[in-house]
Amino acid sequence: MSGEGAVGREVPGAEPRRYGHGVLAAFAAGILRAAGVPPDHASVTAERLVEADLRGRTGHGLIRIPLYVRRIEAGSVNLRPRVSVVSEGPTSALVDGDNGLGQVVMTTAASIAIDKAEAMGMAWVGTVNSNHAGAAGIYPAMAARRGLVSIYMAVGNANSMPPWGGNEKLLSTNPIAIAVPAGDDPPFQLDIATTVASHGTIKVAAQAGEQMPVGWVIDADGEPITDPGRAHDGFLMPIGGYKGAGLNIAIGLLAGVLNGAAFGRSVVDQNAELASPTNTGQAMFVMRPGLFRPDGSGAAVAEHLAELRHSGSNRAGPLRLPGDEAGRLEVENLANGIAVPPALVEELNATARRLKTGQLLA
Amino acid sequence: MSGEGAVGREVPGAEPRRYGHGVLAAFAAGILRAAGVPPDHASVTAERLVEADLRGRTGHGLIRIPLYVRRIEAGSVNLRPRVSVVSEGPTSALVDGDNGLGQVVMTTAASIAIDKAEAMGMAWVGTVNSNHAGAAGIYPAMAARRGLVSIYMAVGNANSMPPWGGNEKLLSTNPIAIAVPAGDDPPFQLDIATTVASHGTIKVAAQAGEQMPVGWVIDADGEPITDPGRAHDGFLMPIGGYKGAGLNIAIGLLAGVLNGAAFGRSVVDQNAELASPTNTGQAMFVMRPGLFRPDGSGAAVAEHLAELRHSGSNRAGPLRLPGDEAGRLEVENLANGIAVPPALVEELNATARRLKTGQLLA
Repeated sequence: MSGEGAVGREVPGAEPRRYGHGVLAAFAAGILRAAGVPPDHASVTAERLVEADLRGRTGHGLIRIPLYVRRIEAGSVNLRPRVSVVSEGPTSALVDGDNGLGQVVMTTAASIAIDKAEAMGMAWVGTVNSNHAGAAGIYPAMAARRGLVSIYMAVGNANSMPPWGGNEKLLSTNPIAIAVPAGDDPPFQLDIATTVASHGTIKVAAQAGEQMPVGWVIDADGEPITDPGRAHDGFLMPIGGYKGAGLNIAIGLLAGVLNGAAFGRSVVDQNAELASPTNTGQAMFVMRPGLFRPDGSGAAVAEHLAELRHSGSNRAGPLRLPGDEAGRLEVENLANGIAVPPALVEELNATARRLKTGQLLA
Repeated sequence: MSGEGAVGREVPGAEPRRYGHGVLAAFAAGILRAAGVPPDHASVTAERLVEADLRGRTGHGLIRIPLYVRRIEAGSVNLRPRVSVVSEGPTSALVDGDNGLGQVVMTTAASIAIDKAEAMGMAWVGTVNSNHAGAAGIYPAMAARRGLVSIYMAVGNANSMPPWGGNEKLLSTNPIAIAVPAGDDPPFQLDIATTVASHGTIKVAAQAGEQMPVGWVIDADGEPITDPGRAHDGFLMPIGGYKGAGLNIAIGLLAGVLNGAAFGRSVVDQNAELASPTNTGQAMFVMRPGLFRPDGSGAAVAEHLAELRHSGSNRAGPLRLPGDEAGRLEVENLANGIAVPPALVEELNATARRLKTGQLLA
């Protein structure tokens, strides 16, 4: 779909070019280092961002780098954070991110949750004073690689939706991601915002010069907004009306308020308030799937997913379940490189030039 | 909304009559005992059913009794189950319901989860060989009364939706309920099916002689079905399209497959297959909310909920958040009695007469 807003941004003949995963990660880390991020934190952050691009979650990949750099330059991110566990039990921890980059904080939190779950059966780890940590699904993917079930929830970084029936934007896209291992098969991996569209998806549409479908954003009179440049003037719509709006609040309480992180009026719009720390909250629950059935559940999960994929009639191929397309893209992108739209290449190169990294995407 | 199907069922001048909570619970327990349920199990089941009615979840209240009796009479429910923990860790348990009534099995599972969470900080308890356990929200309500956070998930008892893009009904309404204590204020309590409408909601519409709104059920051609009597011919719609359909599968894996309970083709339609045990699965996660912030989170949750309720402008009163209406109804119904529609009174009395309980609703 190419809308009216696209014309001015189209570069004739410009096809997305493909870059190796390692090339992009090194390039991204170079930009972050040039912005002052220590090498280890730059590598972790770049790796998490490229993981999102690898899996097709391009709204939470390299497209975020220019914003991260602007926030770093505005002084709102702590480049030398002391990421530490401030309260701990056998199966729980609260990680204070000390306002470090979100990927650094959440990678630490996810690792702690995974280690505790392996030792104790399950664990819940929350974060406080964190920042935007990228695609929700990348943290459950870490647990799934270790054969663990997990649920990740986060408070989004800009309020864009009122509570159901209201008209003040106090809720964000609050995503939930769930991974369930499926034995020798790829895991089931759900990664959804509780709004119909996420900020990332809207960014991707804006950069591609596309219009948004009706149903993503409405204005104060309930009329659809389809220009992504005007998305911020309207309200995002929750999935399933009051149901998704309620689930969104539940996530805000569990990932934000339980940890002392921002929710409601205390949420900082990371795009508009560049100089303000966000106090983002996240939560990750991890569990060994073999706690219940003595023989484990991997094979049974795999069988049930296959049953769903091959169900019904009159179709060309298997149905796509959550995570299937991301998994397929990951394999394809690892083999052939990740396609990066020309407008994003240009924007990233402009950032790299300005920061004098000495590295550009060809 | 009163649709065309209502005319034949309307009883002129018949207003719902109100009955005390204790009267209804005793009446329901009497029917169950007359059907052969031991007194303790009859009491627990009746209490859980009336709790649903008290909170306005009438689709999972007394309206279910005639079906339960039919299933008992068809021999598909074990009236003398040995409900037992078949695998256990410090923070986990699998409860084998031995095909007992779902409320009995889930009340046991919820109690174990609550006790373990109080002792260990958190716990996840699953069920296998359970049955329909009523309104999802009544189990988190048990945990909330003890000041605990909880998440309940269940595999529904009739497949009514295909996986996204498919046309074979392999998914049920798979509900999720979440409660978060709010200090001295009533807790936040979400209780949603992951379909736009639940079987219970459709039952209520059918008994009231009402039509269903467009968007609840579609036929194989994607056209809306609005006659609740024809709901079974169509597909329920998931909340948020592929997102809700994915969340529905996640719940099926976590509440069903992890426990060795039914999911997909192994789900038994409890209405159509009266003589078949359902092997229903449920899961309940319970956690102490004070694991993270040293001062606990109750007051902060209460403040944030108040902020949401009183947000925005131009409204007559506070916004209703998930659980607010249920909480209001509970207070009102405890004080004034529970309104039971005449058609349901008649159906319950017919069941009571047939079983010769000696008790009828006036």
